[in-house]
Amino acid sequence: MFKKIGAVVLSTSLVLSGLSIGTVDAKPDAVDRKGKGNKKVENVIFMVPDGFSADYASNYRVYKGEDAVWDDHLKGMFTTHSANSDITDSAAAGTAMSTGEKTNNGVIGMDTEGNELETILEASQENGKATGLVATSTITHATPASFASHVEDRNNETEIARQMLENEVDVILGGGKNNFLPFDQGGNQEKLNLIEQAEEQGYELVETRSQLLDNKQIALKKGEKLLGLFADDALAPELHRAETEEPSLAEMTESAIDVLEEDKDGFFLVVEGSQIDWAGHANDAAWAMSDVAAFEKAVEEAIDFAKKDGKTQVIVAADHDTGGMTTGSNGSMDLNADLLTDVTATGDYMATQLNEDRSNVSEVLKTHTGFELTEEEINEIQQADNAPLAINTIVSDRASIGWTSTNHTGADIPVYAYGPQTHKFVGFHDNTDLPKIIAEAMKLK
Amino acid sequence: MFKKIGAVVLSTSLVLSGLSIGTVDAKPDAVDRKGKGNKKVENVIFMVPDGFSADYASNYRVYKGEDAVWDDHLKGMFTTHSANSDITDSAAAGTAMSTGEKTNNGVIGMDTEGNELETILEASQENGKATGLVATSTITHATPASFASHVEDRNNETEIARQMLENEVDVILGGGKNNFLPFDQGGNQEKLNLIEQAEEQGYELVETRSQLLDNKQIALKKGEKLLGLFADDALAPELHRAETEEPSLAEMTESAIDVLEEDKDGFFLVVEGSQIDWAGHANDAAWAMSDVAAFEKAVEEAIDFAKKDGKTQVIVAADHDTGGMTTGSNGSMDLNADLLTDVTATGDYMATQLNEDRSNVSEVLKTHTGFELTEEEINEIQQADNAPLAINTIVSDRASIGWTSTNHTGADIPVYAYGPQTHKFVGFHDNTDLPKIIAEAMKLK
Repeated sequence: MFKKIGAVVLSTSLVLSGLSIGTVDAKPDAVDRKGKGNKKVENVIFMVPDGFSADYASNYRVYKGEDAVWDDHLKGMFTTHSANSDITDSAAAGTAMSTGEKTNNGVIGMDTEGNELETILEASQENGKATGLVATSTITHATPASFASHVEDRNNETEIARQMLENEVDVILGGGKNNFLPFDQGGNQEKLNLIEQAEEQGYELVETRSQLLDNKQIALKKGEKLLGLFADDALAPELHRAETEEPSLAEMTESAIDVLEEDKDGFFLVVEGSQIDWAGHANDAAWAMSDVAAFEKAVEEAIDFAKKDGKTQVIVAADHDTGGMTTGSNGSMDLNADLLTDVTATGDYMATQLNEDRSNVSEVLKTHTGFELTEEEINEIQQADNAPLAINTIVSDRASIGWTSTNHTGADIPVYAYGPQTHKFVGFHDNTDLPKIIAEAMKLK
Repeated sequence: MFKKIGAVVLSTSLVLSGLSIGTVDAKPDAVDRKGKGNKKVENVIFMVPDGFSADYASNYRVYKGEDAVWDDHLKGMFTTHSANSDITDSAAAGTAMSTGEKTNNGVIGMDTEGNELETILEASQENGKATGLVATSTITHATPASFASHVEDRNNETEIARQMLENEVDVILGGGKNNFLPFDQGGNQEKLNLIEQAEEQGYELVETRSQLLDNKQIALKKGEKLLGLFADDALAPELHRAETEEPSLAEMTESAIDVLEEDKDGFFLVVEGSQIDWAGHANDAAWAMSDVAAFEKAVEEAIDFAKKDGKTQVIVAADHDTGGMTTGSNGSMDLNADLLTDVTATGDYMATQLNEDRSNVSEVLKTHTGFELTEEEINEIQQADNAPLAINTIVSDRASIGWTSTNHTGADIPVYAYGPQTHKFVGFHDNTDLPKIIAEAMKLK
């Protein structure tokens, strides 16, 4: 059954509503141990580890062997249901976090009636700020799309790409080149070449890590916009990135900040660790933890900038949990996520390395995980209908990480925030509250 | 592998250490929407929903159909590992929360070297305050025991009972009469009759709900202490309490407050919803939710008192997660915990109602859950080695509640707090921080 339950029920449209969130309005130093008081917020870096929940945070702490950079900035938790489902997808969640309104699963930047909603990125733009989107999936994927486009169907990524350029988002970095080069199945060009159009609009185009690191200087000097499309589809999982020419999420984040901070009116930047969610769908604990680690490096870049700048809020808030991950499983009293630091491939990849009769299970797993499998574990993988899932389950069991779904769950999600006025995130919220709190702190008109 | 990871690493002994928790020291109204400023805290009601984590909170919201009384008082989260295990038991967790020190699993009120640690209840007593313990398990169970006794082994409940009386805890309400009447296996009395001793010490003894509600007035008038032992062992699960003469957790809490508030120097009361944990071990979602509901009524009593009083902190903080509960499971996009409101018995009880060949599975489940089972579900229960677990798994699947263990997990635990100075609970903590924050607010010497 669908139930509308949530922290603070606010039906007003966001950005221009000038809402006040309860009475949480005192000195920020009260609650942000490293906060900067009630200073005006000039810049916002909204960081979304897609699919990450409190159990990812606790398992990641074990994986890393120490606290993550966000732990000390925990401010509260929030609910995530969408307008038509107890459990949200990334489109409705992204729209809630970008517009302050609930919508139906699958819908981007529109309400349940199909009306376009102004996003906080667009409102920032109208207030003179530069804007940016960074992701490790296609850049036209649901989460970044929700901040800079309006479509009924999240799968319409070509239209999302068109709108992102039409909206003149200043920095666009991620995967999904194919969505900017729309050919039909036969290879015939059938729509606009959006990359050519982008260059005409004054975007500097970069397609590899080295081009990004070199050419962002050109964009900086020329005051140009920056379009980085580093793969035809999604970027590689962090576990396999070294085999590519792709930049890391941290490098994309740093580059985006470098370009955007040139705008004297400030900036609004969205950074998504997209594949944590995909790892959760696959119940692939090693993929999840390694992509969380890559995301953490990006958060470090953002917080380092915010510390120097003093007028920047960094918010870390996932859109939903994926997989029903738990911190411990199967009666174990030990947490062993640290074993995953030795895993060098996703379950999907390992499954491609199995020969036809799967007689090499033991060797493949030994090579990519370091684990010596038992006969029972070998049999499980050999007999499985879904070999990647069987591999991931065994790896997760070794790590004492539990999963209860291959879909999203309705777990409350932690929000972490650093910078001035971040005390306003303290307590229990709904996902629609987040952009309202940010808009108020930015004094968007 | 065992790893010591946690929020704030503080190795000092608690109560007398006068610690300062970072810089979280500004006006409480900043963060507690219903807080009462920096007033001195005269009374503390420390409420422990044993085994309850953020996923219990989110599922309970669906079960109830609206926010729980604690949701709006969310302040932060904390880590729970014990001194010798990634995943804590209730003894080490109780000791961390009562003394501010980590100890080994199984140990009550002592450090890893076997030295007794002063508890915050004992420190409150030394500061002239009245004290109380309320639980729905045996009152000598690990959690309440950790506040008022010191034993190497949590199973030594007779010794724990003796120490609780020796410590003159003013109000003791729960189950476990057997631990106060120590007979050997043959029925021969072999140790002290602690109930007789308690009466000699000036405790008013009550053994039923009606005696509690009537006789607390006697205790009040006489200024006596109150000992309520309402069952030989644990009290009944809330689902089955109506068949007994036992008071509810809310009634015990209200009675305890009534007696304790007579002390002009204030009081320190511990209230445990003990069986949420047992439900978690059994993966019994209906038992868990109904015992959370009973616990919530107790929290309402406490907050009602705190609202009137203005000098009372109510803290709600579980000791650990049990069962690896998740909010959603098996790929479902719906949350259905509300279906559990129709369940009238625990899985354990339903299993006792099965006949020898389990041919009546369908009728038993229909009677106690309202569910029409499928043939497949009936077969699963009929074939199961563990019938209660099979029943509970089917009920949980219907409710879209997932489980990954029959033991505790290492999930971070939310802390909720109402009353003056509760802003100090904001952020990320370790379980050992909680009594330090409370002691500082109470200005214990």
